[in-house]
Amino acid sequence: MSNSKVCTTIRVRYSEIDRMGTFYNSRALEWFEVGRTEWLRATGIAYSEMERRGVGLPLVESHVEYIGTATYDDELQIAVSAEMSGKARMRFDIEIARADGSGNVARGYTVHALIDPTSENSGTIRPIRPPQWFLEAIQNV
Amino acid sequence: MSNSKVCTTIRVRYSEIDRMGTFYNSRALEWFEVGRTEWLRATGIAYSEMERRGVGLPLVESHVEYIGTATYDDELQIAVSAEMSGKARMRFDIEIARADGSGNVARGYTVHALIDPTSENSGTIRPIRPPQWFLEAIQNV
Amino acid sequence: MSNSKVCTTIRVRYSEIDRMGTFYNSRALEWFEVGRTEWLRATGIAYSEMERRGVGLPLVESHVEYIGTATYDDELQIAVSAEMSGKARMRFDIEIARADGSGNVARGYTVHALIDPTSENSGTIRPIRPPQWFLEAIQNV
Amino acid sequence: MSNSKVCTTIRVRYSEIDRMGTFYNSRALEWFEVGRTEWLRATGIAYSEMERRGVGLPLVESHVEYIGTATYDDELQIAVSAEMSGKARMRFDIEIARADGSGNVARGYTVHALIDPTSENSGTIRPIRPPQWFLEAIQNV
Repeated sequence: MSNSKVCTTIRVRYSEIDRMGTFYNSRALEWFEVGRTEWLRATGIAYSEMERRGVGLPLVESHVEYIGTATYDDELQIAVSAEMSGKARMRFDIEIARADGSGNVARGYTVHALIDPTSENSGTIRPIRPPQWFLEAIQNV
Repeated sequence: MSNSKVCTTIRVRYSEIDRMGTFYNSRALEWFEVGRTEWLRATGIAYSEMERRGVGLPLVESHVEYIGTATYDDELQIAVSAEMSGKARMRFDIEIARADGSGNVARGYTVHALIDPTSENSGTIRPIRPPQWFLEAIQNV
Repeated sequence: MSNSKVCTTIRVRYSEIDRMGTFYNSRALEWFEVGRTEWLRATGIAYSEMERRGVGLPLVESHVEYIGTATYDDELQIAVSAEMSGKARMRFDIEIARADGSGNVARGYTVHALIDPTSENSGTIRPIRPPQWFLEAIQNV
Repeated sequence: MSNSKVCTTIRVRYSEIDRMGTFYNSRALEWFEVGRTEWLRATGIAYSEMERRGVGLPLVESHVEYIGTATYDDELQIAVSAEMSGKARMRFDIEIARADGSGNVARGYTVHALIDPTSENSGTIRPIRPPQWFLEAIQNV
């Protein structure tokens, strides 16, 4: 399993800042998702295509450490690495820092089950083993 | 330190459901906050009053385990207990379950620094020791 | 068409407040939705049941006037009335005020198409005429 | 007053899609804000700097027409023009379309008061006349 980091840059939106003047805590998980989207794209198969092929990756666990502040219009860099965790889970490690290098903002990880994405709507989630194309794709990063 | 649980009930909003049909993962942290708000109110001093008196409680860590699904218009119960963690931090333990008793949805914890809430805007966060009124209030729950 | 108002009360969440200290503008549309949910429940058929029966109500237009501020932990009352608008649209008129009667916060309206909710995923939205059970239900409010 | 359009491109986040498979309606207002941020930057004075100089631009009115769908990972282009509206208000006209040219998604406008941004927290919002530097800056777009 490779451990290359895939980086993406975002700008903090006004809607993401709370009355203390820094980002509201749940936003870190939304930014983690933006980073995961770019990591998955780097496999050569974007996540929306993975869902069409029958692989959904809902979270089973998230962990965030809040290290520094970030306010409206700041540019942030999200750096993501990922690997399989056991036979049917993926783990993403994510770091968010100011894009100008002036400090860290948050870091953490998310753990994801592999499921049939059409099963969640039906109420009985069906876990799956990773298909061969999926295992090959995540080696590409 | 008491460990009474404070419970509150919410209804899942349409805006909180993603295209898999269950709540988007970051919403758990927003619901944790709703639960913390009610726990703090049970101390006799609501959080907005605590901020006015000079105690802010920003997150330094969050952890969520996603256990079950919840969809639009479901009623959820949020159960919260809390205690000091060392001399200058608080920890909240939170469980979210269906209000009809049909299953757990998420559980986790958040750890909070005690800070001067006027300092975050200035860019240099000032940690504080808990004032006596604060320590007495959290014994009331 | 009746024009009874259906009222519901919410408490402003910390996540909904921006760095000016009042609610972020898009939150008004989420609160409008909370009000619509209760109006639809008052018909005797909750919106999630309407979707199961084949009636989706996506927005085609929204309008908000921002009148007053509201901050964390404030209690707000959302008052909603609704009527058919032409043969295949519904219009909701919504007012948000402080629950303690101390002032208005926002008011506006949303216009909704009636569609087959399974069609939106497929990319070609299929408008529908309101079924008889739907027209009867909205007379109940 | 010039009427140049300032365009910016975003990618739709998973968190922004609802269970019908398209973006949740309030997200349009958040995307409008992303577009306004870039329009204001094009004046030569970013909005965060305007706030520091004493000009806040809270919404007093918003209007959105929902024209087409957009789903996770779609690229959208936000095109914004703006002008003064009377002596103490600004109006932004905003169009969101698929970046690949395949269709419109939403359009609308927002009207903003000019206020002292430090006054909102205090509960009594203080409207202001636009300073000369502000009127000159918005001619630069």
